[in-house]
Amino acid sequence: MADNSFGQLFSFTTFGESHGPGIGCVVDGVPPRIPLSEALVQPYLDRRKPGQNRFVTQRREADSVEILSGVFEGMTTGTPVAMLIRNTDQRSKDYGDIARQFRPGHADFTYQQKYGIRDYRGGGRSSARETASRVAAGAVADLALKHILGDGFRIRGGVVQIGQHPIDRNRLDWDETANNPFFCPDPVAAVAWEAVLDEVRKAGSSAGAILEIVADGVPPGLGQPIYGKLDSDLAAAMMTINAAKGVEIGGGFALAAMDGAEAGDEMRAGETGPEFLSNNNGGVLGGISTGQQLVVRLAIKPTSSILTPRRSVDLDGADVDVVTKGRHDPCVGIRGVPVAEAMMAITLLDALMRHTGQCGLGADA
Amino acid sequence: MADNSFGQLFSFTTFGESHGPGIGCVVDGVPPRIPLSEALVQPYLDRRKPGQNRFVTQRREADSVEILSGVFEGMTTGTPVAMLIRNTDQRSKDYGDIARQFRPGHADFTYQQKYGIRDYRGGGRSSARETASRVAAGAVADLALKHILGDGFRIRGGVVQIGQHPIDRNRLDWDETANNPFFCPDPVAAVAWEAVLDEVRKAGSSAGAILEIVADGVPPGLGQPIYGKLDSDLAAAMMTINAAKGVEIGGGFALAAMDGAEAGDEMRAGETGPEFLSNNNGGVLGGISTGQQLVVRLAIKPTSSILTPRRSVDLDGADVDVVTKGRHDPCVGIRGVPVAEAMMAITLLDALMRHTGQCGLGADA
Amino acid sequence: MADNSFGQLFSFTTFGESHGPGIGCVVDGVPPRIPLSEALVQPYLDRRKPGQNRFVTQRREADSVEILSGVFEGMTTGTPVAMLIRNTDQRSKDYGDIARQFRPGHADFTYQQKYGIRDYRGGGRSSARETASRVAAGAVADLALKHILGDGFRIRGGVVQIGQHPIDRNRLDWDETANNPFFCPDPVAAVAWEAVLDEVRKAGSSAGAILEIVADGVPPGLGQPIYGKLDSDLAAAMMTINAAKGVEIGGGFALAAMDGAEAGDEMRAGETGPEFLSNNNGGVLGGISTGQQLVVRLAIKPTSSILTPRRSVDLDGADVDVVTKGRHDPCVGIRGVPVAEAMMAITLLDALMRHTGQCGLGADA
Amino acid sequence: MADNSFGQLFSFTTFGESHGPGIGCVVDGVPPRIPLSEALVQPYLDRRKPGQNRFVTQRREADSVEILSGVFEGMTTGTPVAMLIRNTDQRSKDYGDIARQFRPGHADFTYQQKYGIRDYRGGGRSSARETASRVAAGAVADLALKHILGDGFRIRGGVVQIGQHPIDRNRLDWDETANNPFFCPDPVAAVAWEAVLDEVRKAGSSAGAILEIVADGVPPGLGQPIYGKLDSDLAAAMMTINAAKGVEIGGGFALAAMDGAEAGDEMRAGETGPEFLSNNNGGVLGGISTGQQLVVRLAIKPTSSILTPRRSVDLDGADVDVVTKGRHDPCVGIRGVPVAEAMMAITLLDALMRHTGQCGLGADA
Repeated sequence: MADNSFGQLFSFTTFGESHGPGIGCVVDGVPPRIPLSEALVQPYLDRRKPGQNRFVTQRREADSVEILSGVFEGMTTGTPVAMLIRNTDQRSKDYGDIARQFRPGHADFTYQQKYGIRDYRGGGRSSARETASRVAAGAVADLALKHILGDGFRIRGGVVQIGQHPIDRNRLDWDETANNPFFCPDPVAAVAWEAVLDEVRKAGSSAGAILEIVADGVPPGLGQPIYGKLDSDLAAAMMTINAAKGVEIGGGFALAAMDGAEAGDEMRAGETGPEFLSNNNGGVLGGISTGQQLVVRLAIKPTSSILTPRRSVDLDGADVDVVTKGRHDPCVGIRGVPVAEAMMAITLLDALMRHTGQCGLGADA
Repeated sequence: MADNSFGQLFSFTTFGESHGPGIGCVVDGVPPRIPLSEALVQPYLDRRKPGQNRFVTQRREADSVEILSGVFEGMTTGTPVAMLIRNTDQRSKDYGDIARQFRPGHADFTYQQKYGIRDYRGGGRSSARETASRVAAGAVADLALKHILGDGFRIRGGVVQIGQHPIDRNRLDWDETANNPFFCPDPVAAVAWEAVLDEVRKAGSSAGAILEIVADGVPPGLGQPIYGKLDSDLAAAMMTINAAKGVEIGGGFALAAMDGAEAGDEMRAGETGPEFLSNNNGGVLGGISTGQQLVVRLAIKPTSSILTPRRSVDLDGADVDVVTKGRHDPCVGIRGVPVAEAMMAITLLDALMRHTGQCGLGADA
Repeated sequence: MADNSFGQLFSFTTFGESHGPGIGCVVDGVPPRIPLSEALVQPYLDRRKPGQNRFVTQRREADSVEILSGVFEGMTTGTPVAMLIRNTDQRSKDYGDIARQFRPGHADFTYQQKYGIRDYRGGGRSSARETASRVAAGAVADLALKHILGDGFRIRGGVVQIGQHPIDRNRLDWDETANNPFFCPDPVAAVAWEAVLDEVRKAGSSAGAILEIVADGVPPGLGQPIYGKLDSDLAAAMMTINAAKGVEIGGGFALAAMDGAEAGDEMRAGETGPEFLSNNNGGVLGGISTGQQLVVRLAIKPTSSILTPRRSVDLDGADVDVVTKGRHDPCVGIRGVPVAEAMMAITLLDALMRHTGQCGLGADA
Repeated sequence: MADNSFGQLFSFTTFGESHGPGIGCVVDGVPPRIPLSEALVQPYLDRRKPGQNRFVTQRREADSVEILSGVFEGMTTGTPVAMLIRNTDQRSKDYGDIARQFRPGHADFTYQQKYGIRDYRGGGRSSARETASRVAAGAVADLALKHILGDGFRIRGGVVQIGQHPIDRNRLDWDETANNPFFCPDPVAAVAWEAVLDEVRKAGSSAGAILEIVADGVPPGLGQPIYGKLDSDLAAAMMTINAAKGVEIGGGFALAAMDGAEAGDEMRAGETGPEFLSNNNGGVLGGISTGQQLVVRLAIKPTSSILTPRRSVDLDGADVDVVTKGRHDPCVGIRGVPVAEAMMAITLLDALMRHTGQCGLGADA
């Protein structure tokens, strides 16, 4: 797999820097005859768009997507779907010091180490701006999955913890994620988080978050053991998201503290087949989907671009104190929700296609 | 990447079932002129070998490795290194009921769903036995890395929590992992865990675990953003390990609760270059290694093959109560340590080779 | 590898249809700190550009390339280089009948069979227009190779046969390819071909061609046996070119008629190392470059879009007689030369990077 | 793709050297529930086996295959099928000089250049012995294709030219390939070739060959344009075969000399759909199968290991005259037939699986 691509049969490749001419992606292996248009993709991008409220970066980008290829008379043709989003609000002057200083916790340092050069404007390629391309690719995947699997298929996601403030899972209601600026599925927590994040912003700091993404209507059998396990692919997908530092499937780390009887999800005969009595495994066993709800959580660290002065070094290796001005998300995890949903859709469509390619050949055997 | 392969430039493919003729791997892209022999690989396998004490499965396997190719006069030739481990102690009669019953929490169910057939003997391909092949492949990677990077390079791993019993990190000493049957880096916890696991075994149950793997001497610059991020590759690698349900890099989930000033690792000019003042990011920034210690943790769920009766269904979809006899690890996480170390070595060598391939071309630019 | 991508470490992905908004590519794995700009890429595109003389399609396209990413202050950054070429002269009205008829020898039929839908305008994705994207990608590869390997590295190509009219190899002079509209390395043949192609055009027919591409300054050791052989990769690369139906390395098919003594290229000690006394093997032995000139030839069939009426069927399976109007190359092989040069550059840079990744790790061993 | 692997969804990886413990392969992505056993694979290997008559190498190898994994109760399980063939008749003492000398036209020189080390015994990895592994992998593919596509699917191959002696295509009868030691489809040519090859052997020389492989019953729609074109994949597959120097699809190089009207295969409505009136394109248009017979030809150069003294250099770069004793095929192309058939089966099954994965998802659209 190329460095800037993800997926095997269904795959996408992204390009673009924060302050270059634009960003975009090429989506390959698209199933043919799926309805697709800019009007269908744009709503996905609008959910991730910056500048929509005071809790995200104030950069103003329309994030208007142009489909360059792969669609004919409103349908996919099976050829690659390229999409382009022009950058419009770069304000490069905001980033003067960054050219020579490394922000603690940021990719500035490692890009310079690796390549001996970096496009420092707005973080260049390492900016979260890249994730808009993923959301566009994810829209294609999600629309295809819905077309193929029907209305029962649905991916939903939200923020379940900001800083030290988790939601109350007894109040978890995915529909609530549309009603607050945090994609928070708990309406009470959402209100509390406003104060939390206002304080973070005033302090010139930033907050981490935990996201949860679930998928319903996933058929059993998806995932290619041993090294194309569905949960391994999902973990890889989620860990490519900027600032992600941890990922769990189902019970995740909590499963380490359970005993075997508790952890293994029991089954009983149901009306239409076996039914699981719990979902500690998050819908994956042995790397293959069970048909249950797929459950993934990921940890997003706090934004590293903050106003608080931090000790660092510059290009010459000399000590500096770094203060990052400019427009940054106080909690980059919030806008990570549509990105993580996109990565799940992409991973699932690829898994479905690989499974069909191997096991759907029509030999009755 | 094929389903049973991992890696890009340096890669390996495993094969084999728990109760078939044998298991093994083909390691491809091996750097040439690295000293390699069966005698050099065997010690890695011996660490993972079953039957060594009462806390692991009592299956007796010599796990003797035969190198079939790719080595000439004690050196790698750059051609694929195939390794074969014959199965010798299968006792297939132990597994009568498994042929028709699905163990809760086990891949039995999903393999059947996916393929419409499964080799149920000892769990077939989904058995942890497959991981011996990875350890052999990891040995090649580790020996190559040491040869290339020198003695400063070292991967170490251990169990840092069993069930609800974590180590005391103030006592963490990696050298201690050689002194107890748990690869536990805390000698006091190791003693306590004996009683914990004895109780688990007596109860016919099993326990989960959290593993931690660290690598020192990793050069900066490894990892290919955006979708070949070092941490994404590590997460994928770790999540392919049997029973793994979560993975973290550095601070991991705990980073979600930190503020931006705390989470970002500050730097100061040191004698030989920039020095980091902390390592919350676990040695990876923006998907690229910083040169610090690489830190990965993974959660392993309790073994699903237990003596405690559990509700399930059989091949016909009828209700059954499953009791798994046979010889199983009460805590499969323990023997996961050499496996996770192997996966880290493999991931790092591949990252080093990809980085060298792109950035080591000798153009002065 | 994705369907619309080529290469492993250095790779590119193309997108776009003949009559859509535009075409382009994303080039990944680009070595950092290589000088790159639109001004450096444009000359490569200008060589392939349509409408330049009466022997190629009269479609007028500026083929102006816009670099969207991966370049900062005139240098590559190691991140993906996306390039976009807008379509400007589509004239879709020319193609009325094609919507429902299958041109004999054309991909019309197979795209419809495969996808159940096709963008018939100008041949859609199967149009030779796609190859402009490859030329842009090849420019990046060629510029990188020249930067890395120095001036001794050079790729040259030409048409060595049109229809039944080969060049006289005694007159072969690669510099001559710049002096005629056919990239013909034999000035005498070039004159004769004018009459040949004028007749073909008047007859409403088309002509095939044989191309030859050579590379000098290729280091020995490139190519990954067994399945990443340099000649296998070159064959794959060349056979992706529209209308290509055959490929040879060095002596190619003529080698089948030689005896072993004649075919094997002898060596003698030279001043700076072993020297070959002939090059029947075209610079590749066992899939690995020898350091000699690399020699590849490919056969291009005649354009299938011709004015001569041909028997075929339509979308309903009914008999039709097809006459293809519109603007087509009477000999699509001519404009294939820059495309084949591009594919060779791409293949070589990828091979160099893979070789360096495996064998350039700096262990002295 | 790894260096020693071929294929995407259906893939295989080979290992082993001519004079090491053995050779073999791991076949991945195998469709489940296909009947498979050693008894089913062995006949494929027996066709390629050395020592069967005086026109091939006199090395005696039983080439007995052992299936190590992936089969349960006579059926594939969807997990990797590993196969091992032990080497039994190495006679390494025959190869004394080869340790330090480079045979002209042989991979000896390039392996040394690339890796700085080589297993010179019997040519090591570059020996045609590796191809037995492919035949085993090809058997799995062929058996699966027959199971899935039914009896109409069939791959056949033969030698259509040895040295300067082509068959008479008017006598072409594929059934004849079973009746002579050359896989020759022309019984008259077969008789003549006996004398030709006896003379070549007596002269201590070797002969080249042209092979032709055809497949019937290939469904339309296989092949993934643009860079996974069926003909590009076939060309890559064929060019990985030892000593292959050229490949053609359908009319191949002869198409360059045809005009457009002749080259394009016309169609007419037939009883069960469109019928082609010719097959100049060899069953592939735009990289996608048409449903016609698939036709591939490849050129195999003469064996480079010959008794005739040839000028060369040794490891120190000094001039030597090389005489290769030992047991070699006077015409390595002959035993290439089962290998080329295997590569076609592998390429087709992979193409079928990729096509099904993308276009067989069951959305009616």
